[in-house]
Amino acid sequence: MRINFNRLKENMMELAQIGKDPAGGITRVGFSEEEKKAQNWLKEKLDNININNEFDSVGNLIAYYPGESNQDIIIGSHLDTVPQGGMYDGALGVLAGLEVIETLKENNIKLDYGVRLASFVAEEGSKAGGTFGSRCVAGQISNVSDKILSMVNLTNQGIKESAFDIKKIKCYLELHIEQGGVLDTEDIEIGVVTGIVGIQRFEVIINGKANHAGTTPMDLRDDALIKTTFFIQDFYNLINNSEGNIVGTIGSLEVKPGAVNVIPGRVEFLIEMRGMNFDCTDKVINSLKEKYNDSDYKFEEITRKSSVHLNEDIIKTIQETCKDLNYNNKLIQSGAGHDANSIAKIAPSGMIFVPSVNGVSHSPEEYSRWEDIEKAANVLLSVVLKI
Amino acid sequence: MRINFNRLKENMMELAQIGKDPAGGITRVGFSEEEKKAQNWLKEKLDNININNEFDSVGNLIAYYPGESNQDIIIGSHLDTVPQGGMYDGALGVLAGLEVIETLKENNIKLDYGVRLASFVAEEGSKAGGTFGSRCVAGQISNVSDKILSMVNLTNQGIKESAFDIKKIKCYLELHIEQGGVLDTEDIEIGVVTGIVGIQRFEVIINGKANHAGTTPMDLRDDALIKTTFFIQDFYNLINNSEGNIVGTIGSLEVKPGAVNVIPGRVEFLIEMRGMNFDCTDKVINSLKEKYNDSDYKFEEITRKSSVHLNEDIIKTIQETCKDLNYNNKLIQSGAGHDANSIAKIAPSGMIFVPSVNGVSHSPEEYSRWEDIEKAANVLLSVVLKI
Repeated sequence: MRINFNRLKENMMELAQIGKDPAGGITRVGFSEEEKKAQNWLKEKLDNININNEFDSVGNLIAYYPGESNQDIIIGSHLDTVPQGGMYDGALGVLAGLEVIETLKENNIKLDYGVRLASFVAEEGSKAGGTFGSRCVAGQISNVSDKILSMVNLTNQGIKESAFDIKKIKCYLELHIEQGGVLDTEDIEIGVVTGIVGIQRFEVIINGKANHAGTTPMDLRDDALIKTTFFIQDFYNLINNSEGNIVGTIGSLEVKPGAVNVIPGRVEFLIEMRGMNFDCTDKVINSLKEKYNDSDYKFEEITRKSSVHLNEDIIKTIQETCKDLNYNNKLIQSGAGHDANSIAKIAPSGMIFVPSVNGVSHSPEEYSRWEDIEKAANVLLSVVLKI
Repeated sequence: MRINFNRLKENMMELAQIGKDPAGGITRVGFSEEEKKAQNWLKEKLDNININNEFDSVGNLIAYYPGESNQDIIIGSHLDTVPQGGMYDGALGVLAGLEVIETLKENNIKLDYGVRLASFVAEEGSKAGGTFGSRCVAGQISNVSDKILSMVNLTNQGIKESAFDIKKIKCYLELHIEQGGVLDTEDIEIGVVTGIVGIQRFEVIINGKANHAGTTPMDLRDDALIKTTFFIQDFYNLINNSEGNIVGTIGSLEVKPGAVNVIPGRVEFLIEMRGMNFDCTDKVINSLKEKYNDSDYKFEEITRKSSVHLNEDIIKTIQETCKDLNYNNKLIQSGAGHDANSIAKIAPSGMIFVPSVNGVSHSPEEYSRWEDIEKAANVLLSVVLKI
């Protein structure tokens, strides 16, 4: 049994018209009218093929294809985008799930487990924080401030009521584009995700001495920016030589006082590191702290969000399925967060990655090849059948 | 003959009360009420000792102590400050000039040349540009826009009328604090200024590729910030190894797009170099252009302000005077601009520097020792007598 590729492609193209941004790309921000339009478009699709569905108390659209038992396989992702995002991030996972259900239904397949499709609201960052809808159903949000609630037009009671009944969940599956360039660079057809990286952020301040850029000879300077260049290079060297496949980034710098004719007296910036294991990233910071141990260098951890390990059995099932279908595949960690972060906390979860051409995402240039999409959707279908 | 040190000190302390800033330091910005108060305070001092004086058509206060011939030695500097500046920058030069005239007068000395004291308006940067008053008298400003004229309450006709008659100028002398740490570090009593550095500024853009900081492995990145760190280090190495005693500074950086979770795609900054000889600074830029010659690196010269060489004869006279008075001295170039920049273009000019303790200026911490001030004022008097 195979999914209907043309139907999937047509659905993708139709959905891509909603929130089309005159400035380029697609803008369907979480809690916006465009996101609601997309959710309502999906509801109509489901109604048309007689699949039971309803919005939950926070705006997630949940569809249900019944099985023999009262436990369900949940397939989920999101329809919201970043401003001027692409047409694949999130949308592909939801529509691949729709396609799996439609394929099962037209083949009159009744599985041991029901299949629930979850189109989660507001996965991308919003006023209410990222992965909002999936965190609600996983019971990970409570006591949201009135200010935020009124902005997104929700209540704490509604958030509480949206929680899934954990006993009824067999497992969670999410198909998503990689958003990085590993699969594309290595010509891999399917990424089998082992986990989602944790994120650690540090605020770093490097002090020097601000002074007149004309009257201060080079040998009497204490330039905070030149000190920072050595620090940054050491940071990247430590990341590159680290175990555990971690990444590290300094996305911005603030140089103070910041005038063309004043020697930099102070540089402030954030270090971000991502990896499966904080031991590796902690080691980087400890090496930096050891080397830069005088009072001109200050470090403070401001974020420490743990990594998520996906389910070993599901990983094996996805790998076997790829082998059956003769698609080459690679175990890969996700460097970005997903709705699977939330659901992995309450149920065995797995993710299937589609290669992103040139690794571009969150951009109008986001692109995945249709042949890869077809393969991944068939893997999803086969994994559902296997479970 | 010696100046009256106590009188000079009292005048300095009295003037320091005008524009005293509750937030620290002194704020007597060019064209402000505080600057006018300071100029009027000086006018009253001059009136009290019966020295002819008047405001010219742009607000410079010019005083006159007559000599035998109709040529004058001009002693000048300024009473305006940067916001929260110190009490020595500018003010010391004007009040040392006042003290020289007062000393000559009370000793009934009639010199071959008259002595003109010029308290120039708005030397520090203002809407009308730096060294405003001295550029006016040197005939270096014309066709100022109506917008600027109305802001500073002047006319182009007034600016034209303020120009000095060049034939009547014997020479120009300015006593000033060093504003750098060379004299203080080397325990020198008097700095004999050989010239004022030229300023060259370049806009540099370094391009990389912005991408997701989580999903892009280290070996697939083109990080504009890490490229910039190597560029900056090369720049400083070239400056440090250059001939010609040049300095170079990168005072700020702009990293784009500038988010904590996005790899820097572009870094923009200004390079500033100062020195007596553009051959040396051009060499630095040419070496950088040679090394960073691919299209990711862009350079554009945006400022090229020539250096000013002070008069050899005056330099020798100041050196001889220091020797006579038994003060150790050092030939030094000025890294900052002064009113002497303007006047050197129309008359032989010389400058005497007083050590700045710790090289601090444009700050409430600006400080010069009274014993050094006394010595420098006596050098100024003796140089006037010698000429």
